[in-house]
Amino acid sequence: MKLNQFAFHQVSSEQLYQDLVNIKLLDESDKTLSSLKLFQKLIAGIFPEYHSLSSCLEALRYISVDSQHTLADIFNTEPFHLSRHQFIIMVLQLLKFEIGIDFQMDNAEAFYQDCGYPKLSFDQINDSETLLRAFYLLLNLRTKNGMNFLDDLANRGFFNSFFDAQAPHFVFFNNRVQAVFDASKTIREIVYVESDLDTDHDGKHDLLEATIFRPAATDRGLKVPTLYTANPYFKGTNDMTPSLHNVNQNLQPKKAQIIDKAEIQATHTLAYQPIGAKASEENHDTEISAQAETVYSLNDYFLSRGFASVYAAGIGTRHSDGLRTTGSQEETASTIAIIQWLHGDRIAYTNRTDHIPTTAWWCNGNVTMTGKSYLGTLATAAATTGVTGLKAIISESAISSWYDYYRDNGLVVAPEDCQGEDTDVLAIDTFSRLKDDADFQKIKAVYERQQQALTVGQDRDTGNYNTFWDERNYRNDVKHIQCAVLIVHGLNDWNVKLRNPEKLWRALRAAKIPAKIFLHQGQHIYMNNIRSIDFNDMVNYWLVDKLCHDQKNASDADLPKVLIQDNVTPEQWHHYQDWCAESAPIKQFYLQKNRLTTKPKPTETQSFIDNGTTDFLKHNQTEHQWQNALLSQTSEYQHNRLLFLTDPLTKDLYIDGNPIVTLQVAVDSTSGKLSVMLADYGIARRLQAQPSIVGRGALQLGFNNLTEDLKEFQLETHPSPFKLITKGHINMQNRRNTWSNDVIQPGNFYTVRFELQPTHYHLLTNHQLGLIVYSTDMGMTLRESRVQSYTLDLNASRLEIPYNK
Amino acid sequence: MKLNQFAFHQVSSEQLYQDLVNIKLLDESDKTLSSLKLFQKLIAGIFPEYHSLSSCLEALRYISVDSQHTLADIFNTEPFHLSRHQFIIMVLQLLKFEIGIDFQMDNAEAFYQDCGYPKLSFDQINDSETLLRAFYLLLNLRTKNGMNFLDDLANRGFFNSFFDAQAPHFVFFNNRVQAVFDASKTIREIVYVESDLDTDHDGKHDLLEATIFRPAATDRGLKVPTLYTANPYFKGTNDMTPSLHNVNQNLQPKKAQIIDKAEIQATHTLAYQPIGAKASEENHDTEISAQAETVYSLNDYFLSRGFASVYAAGIGTRHSDGLRTTGSQEETASTIAIIQWLHGDRIAYTNRTDHIPTTAWWCNGNVTMTGKSYLGTLATAAATTGVTGLKAIISESAISSWYDYYRDNGLVVAPEDCQGEDTDVLAIDTFSRLKDDADFQKIKAVYERQQQALTVGQDRDTGNYNTFWDERNYRNDVKHIQCAVLIVHGLNDWNVKLRNPEKLWRALRAAKIPAKIFLHQGQHIYMNNIRSIDFNDMVNYWLVDKLCHDQKNASDADLPKVLIQDNVTPEQWHHYQDWCAESAPIKQFYLQKNRLTTKPKPTETQSFIDNGTTDFLKHNQTEHQWQNALLSQTSEYQHNRLLFLTDPLTKDLYIDGNPIVTLQVAVDSTSGKLSVMLADYGIARRLQAQPSIVGRGALQLGFNNLTEDLKEFQLETHPSPFKLITKGHINMQNRRNTWSNDVIQPGNFYTVRFELQPTHYHLLTNHQLGLIVYSTDMGMTLRESRVQSYTLDLNASRLEIPYNK
Repeated sequence: MKLNQFAFHQVSSEQLYQDLVNIKLLDESDKTLSSLKLFQKLIAGIFPEYHSLSSCLEALRYISVDSQHTLADIFNTEPFHLSRHQFIIMVLQLLKFEIGIDFQMDNAEAFYQDCGYPKLSFDQINDSETLLRAFYLLLNLRTKNGMNFLDDLANRGFFNSFFDAQAPHFVFFNNRVQAVFDASKTIREIVYVESDLDTDHDGKHDLLEATIFRPAATDRGLKVPTLYTANPYFKGTNDMTPSLHNVNQNLQPKKAQIIDKAEIQATHTLAYQPIGAKASEENHDTEISAQAETVYSLNDYFLSRGFASVYAAGIGTRHSDGLRTTGSQEETASTIAIIQWLHGDRIAYTNRTDHIPTTAWWCNGNVTMTGKSYLGTLATAAATTGVTGLKAIISESAISSWYDYYRDNGLVVAPEDCQGEDTDVLAIDTFSRLKDDADFQKIKAVYERQQQALTVGQDRDTGNYNTFWDERNYRNDVKHIQCAVLIVHGLNDWNVKLRNPEKLWRALRAAKIPAKIFLHQGQHIYMNNIRSIDFNDMVNYWLVDKLCHDQKNASDADLPKVLIQDNVTPEQWHHYQDWCAESAPIKQFYLQKNRLTTKPKPTETQSFIDNGTTDFLKHNQTEHQWQNALLSQTSEYQHNRLLFLTDPLTKDLYIDGNPIVTLQVAVDSTSGKLSVMLADYGIARRLQAQPSIVGRGALQLGFNNLTEDLKEFQLETHPSPFKLITKGHINMQNRRNTWSNDVIQPGNFYTVRFELQPTHYHLLTNHQLGLIVYSTDMGMTLRESRVQSYTLDLNASRLEIPYNK
Repeated sequence: MKLNQFAFHQVSSEQLYQDLVNIKLLDESDKTLSSLKLFQKLIAGIFPEYHSLSSCLEALRYISVDSQHTLADIFNTEPFHLSRHQFIIMVLQLLKFEIGIDFQMDNAEAFYQDCGYPKLSFDQINDSETLLRAFYLLLNLRTKNGMNFLDDLANRGFFNSFFDAQAPHFVFFNNRVQAVFDASKTIREIVYVESDLDTDHDGKHDLLEATIFRPAATDRGLKVPTLYTANPYFKGTNDMTPSLHNVNQNLQPKKAQIIDKAEIQATHTLAYQPIGAKASEENHDTEISAQAETVYSLNDYFLSRGFASVYAAGIGTRHSDGLRTTGSQEETASTIAIIQWLHGDRIAYTNRTDHIPTTAWWCNGNVTMTGKSYLGTLATAAATTGVTGLKAIISESAISSWYDYYRDNGLVVAPEDCQGEDTDVLAIDTFSRLKDDADFQKIKAVYERQQQALTVGQDRDTGNYNTFWDERNYRNDVKHIQCAVLIVHGLNDWNVKLRNPEKLWRALRAAKIPAKIFLHQGQHIYMNNIRSIDFNDMVNYWLVDKLCHDQKNASDADLPKVLIQDNVTPEQWHHYQDWCAESAPIKQFYLQKNRLTTKPKPTETQSFIDNGTTDFLKHNQTEHQWQNALLSQTSEYQHNRLLFLTDPLTKDLYIDGNPIVTLQVAVDSTSGKLSVMLADYGIARRLQAQPSIVGRGALQLGFNNLTEDLKEFQLETHPSPFKLITKGHINMQNRRNTWSNDVIQPGNFYTVRFELQPTHYHLLTNHQLGLIVYSTDMGMTLRESRVQSYTLDLNASRLEIPYNK
């Protein structure tokens, strides 16, 4: 078991003592205590459940320090002495490991090291200086349940005496803000922010409901930073199944069109600066209470630590005005309106009718945005406006250009498990105003017109990049970003594909905007409950620097810039200087019949037939079953694809970046689509892309706060023969670019060169790299019912693999 | 969707008004209000989030009453009038159903009826009397999220003004206790109850840790009932995998022994009455705080409603004394010691060393026990002692005799998915003192002796019923039960098999002890989060009667005595007069070659070979895969069993009780075991035994309280060909009884007659009833490696099926 700690920061003796005073484990006056008295005070302090000496001593008697003694013996023995071995045995038990079960007493030190805990610099503890440093370390170590020990103490009531402080303040320890606030006292209320939009064309500015969760301490004068999550799903979703587009149809040939990118560039028609009124003075009243709700447990974690959470669902959601526009400028404007109110630059009202203003008087003006998927997408969108007050975004599994979510190289390509979805369908999903029929009937006509506009604009007929999509490409505006950026993404995310964070990362790098990126081995998930990584601590450390006044710290330097989870060894996280580096070396592969080689050799052509749809639909297979079949070496669909395999690798290959394929290809009709997969072939127990629960409800977010399941990525129980590395798709008519169409003459060969989705993949020695070329992707593309034949001229086909190490 | 309500009680107009005053929705003086003013007051009251008239009116404008009007129109229109149709449309939206999504406005009344809501007795509401009755009904109706509307209001803050009452009191509405207490203020503390036991032979009475969760209102003088859960897993469990017994072995012949039952009857050596000291006066101090923890959400639900929860893990668990004894008298005594303390009959201490007494001064002396499986088992055990203070038990999926958990008819028969487990293994699992090595080392020797005693006593060698098991048969003491009993069990529970509740039910009936039984279609699960049934409300209604002073109600008469979930139609719950009635009629079936017939006809013999173990182990199959294969009509294991099928049924058959098989059988060796299954053959989409989540976190247990997933049993997505109805096993040497062994001469025919596990099963017309006779049950019996041949004389074999209707 690894409990990596990236957020721990070595501090000076002075800072260390000050931190211990901050958390009231010691007083200033304790400096003069003898080592034993100091030890007794420290030990009594870390058993907050025991309110008498007798009961505390009983607790100490359960904790061994060696085979002969318990902590109670040490506690009562003058002169004070604790060996390094005894200390480790004690620490491991305090961190919830059990002797004889998790570790053997003899082997405690090795176990301690295997967990990845920091090295100890002492052999004995018998002076106060060493004792303080040892205890300080202990407070920072992560328990078996994932939280660090001080957080565990907080969960056990350590900070409860802070809860009702008359002059509440933040408490920092090792630069991180601590859980000294009572989450059960959170104040929950609703206000209506006035935007400058009128997306439902009723002649009135769209009012946007914002839901505020703020610590009760704000009522006693504390000004707090805000974690803001723009969440279109917050007010509920609708069933979009009946609205899904039919994907069981053939790809149509497109009219030839060679145009310049300038012709399809979107113009920004919206000024994002607030033009409406601001509230002139503080107003503390609200009229509407909100219900407790959990969206992202990172936000809940910070509630115990004094940061507010604010949620807004945006235009077109229940109890707000407007319509859903899926990624438009209006949506971005509605997203940042909330920040502008939090920062004091925009007005909000206590209800929707009476125009009684209310200010975010409790906010210190500093905001970060959080959330995954659509939520993270809006964080990215907001950042690209440069809105004042937004100091940081944690953008997880987020879209950076909607074209890269619903399209690929001139093709309609669905996110995994989302066949038939598109911007118009997502607008239905999130249009929660539908839930109040009385409200919906008032705007039905304008809603239907807006839906029609999305359907036309997204243009499923061509799949081309156009002005509609260019408006929805946030990367056009990376230069405006004024805040710190943390990107988080799963390397197995086939919902929001890796091109989204990759192109954003490249744009940030080009614009020299400071950013970090964490890539885990999951699919479309959060990573804050993964045991092997101290995500919450890292975010805490980083956000304190960004959001708290006078708390600048070294987190930008201390925390990894690029953190990538290993796909071979569980619980291993690598710290890199870059991802998808421009300077990455390229390994070139050539195609031979069913083979990938590193040296070219004249060879023949190879063909496949695209006719799998009938069988797929007849057998009622899932898209995952179909994909597994296609990847397998003896596939029922093997005539639907070509599989090119390298020889077993003689050394490990670390793929890093976008593989590029060049295919010289002919098809027997006037339209054609190509799909390509790269896969890792070799029998191995691979890391599962779904983390397993290793502690149900084990991650407690604070005293009186919620719990969350602790998870970890584990190896498969049984070995598997292959694993998808990456994928790509292209409309052969878009071989020039995504907005121009060239013609296809049946039987003519064309050079089609395109990037696959980027990745980082550790391919092991003795495994084989496989290139799979096919056409219909049952899970992502239109499903062809006609039978098409594709022929590859292998001589002119290539695969380029960027790599590192 | 069905939202059945069994707990709703029709009340008089006086009671109705009093209830509305109790919850402070109305005052006494409101009786004189005009209908419109009354309506306005009621409506304003049920929008507790809205603290101003403006914001409340906004909320009303979202709620349609017909296609032209909203609730805001009704609210403002004199004279007040609401049609029955308008009322239903309003009510459905308040209960969280959406127009155009869940129901159509035109069809509201039919939808209301389909949900199973009570019939409305009015066509118009325009007078105060009708209005009050209509609103009272609304407050009792269950929302889409499973809770009733008043609970939903409580979750939304309706009762928050009660939280800090100086003279706190229970609030009853429709006889149920309401959520007027702040769950986040729960006081959690630990005491040590002194038992009269010394199971670890250290010369001192075993101290038992008890963990108390009590409402803060107790500190302001409220005396409260207690839900006590005896939970051996409460302090953690150990890995029992290495201790599992090997089941891959052959059944050994047993020495002939014909004995009288009296020879193996256990004698009670323990007096359950407390002999130790009592604390003489109230002592309010405790020294140790406990952590929040959730074991059973029914307990958490009652925390908001003012009832305390108490947990104790019992002898041999972490921080208590003693050893684990799996079902012994000592375990029962340690279980009831907590009740004796709660009732004031036993002493407890504030810590383990100082002998400072502490009383349960906050308890009203009335206790109910709750919990599932081992937890429910201990509730049953406690009830059979007649301990004072225990007023009711809710015993779910519970063992009533440990022989019926680990044995069957002279065979070692494992609970499902528990092959190799036994009383000694379970004692290791729950022996959480192992977690503190310093504690464990002190008692290691005596622990090992105790484990040895369990291993010897359970006697896996013979599988016979003996004194050890007789001590662990709680049914011997049913006559001592002094409390109300509610049994809950899943009809698909193959962990704690149905014989356990059945034999207890029969014993209670014989002893004329008032009891109820609820049988759901699940496996080994709780049913309190199933949407189609108001379990929490029923328990609330029932416990108020049993535990609250001066609150006798009609729940015994109102609530079903026998409630059984239908296995064919989802969300259907039947109310019966009895289960396993002694007077049930019997349908007799005769065996022909591969056929079950209702008329006898001379016929031949049929044989099968028991040799499946090698294949089963070689193919690494799960026990479930094996069982499915065995049941299928074209089985890879078909030579391992005989399958007898009826003709397709010409009318539905409701099996109810214990089917009995009589087999005239010979085996080619000196030992033999028989297994039998009954199955329902016929292609159908059957109810799944695992309920699906229909609302993640939708069931909120109170304001500031936990949430739980709302679940429902749904039909299979695809039709299945068969389903197991019931099973049974016997050692052919135990054909006389479970404690005597007759010999087997190879090739000789013997009459073996035995009961299968009881059930209640609705077998549909056109389906076929199947009887499967086999020997080795891979999931439950020893797995034979020798090849045995069994022959049935069909002429003398029979199947008797008790049924009702």
